[in-house]
Amino acid sequence: MFKASVRVTLRQSVHDPQGNAVKRSLHALGFDGVKDVRVGKLLELEVDVPNRAQAEEQVVAMCERLLANPVIETYTVSVEEADA
Amino acid sequence: MFKASVRVTLRQSVHDPQGNAVKRSLHALGFDGVKDVRVGKLLELEVDVPNRAQAEEQVVAMCERLLANPVIETYTVSVEEADA
Repeated sequence: MFKASVRVTLRQSVHDPQGNAVKRSLHALGFDGVKDVRVGKLLELEVDVPNRAQAEEQVVAMCERLLANPVIETYTVSVEEADA
Repeated sequence: MFKASVRVTLRQSVHDPQGNAVKRSLHALGFDGVKDVRVGKLLELEVDVPNRAQAEEQVVAMCERLLANPVIETYTVSVEEADA
């Protein structure tokens, strides 16, 4: 069993209305030092496959097919052995 | 200037309907090895404060007041110097 952590973030060139909304709220709370906020998705998966290479390969395929929109998003995948 | 990365995830005891929906979709795409999916938020902030300790302190305060709901979520904060 393997644990995969997938970080999906908007490409830098893509406008982030959600991030801007969070920034405005933080300013309204007095956190004036905040210059930029980008909001992304974090997915934590448990995958039952024979080895780590297969886990990595499958999670990348999941990103390409479902978890990330390649037009506006980029993703990173990290895989580790799940505690027995 | 400092870059902070905030990971907000549901507490383990909290039901994750979004994660379940993603899991079902992955199964429908043939990724049968997926046993569990948890969906969380990833926030990347740029904070203009004098030093790292203040950056960390402020971002934790932002989590407590806005970015995370302490009843159902937990968060982690990591801070690094932004490239000049």
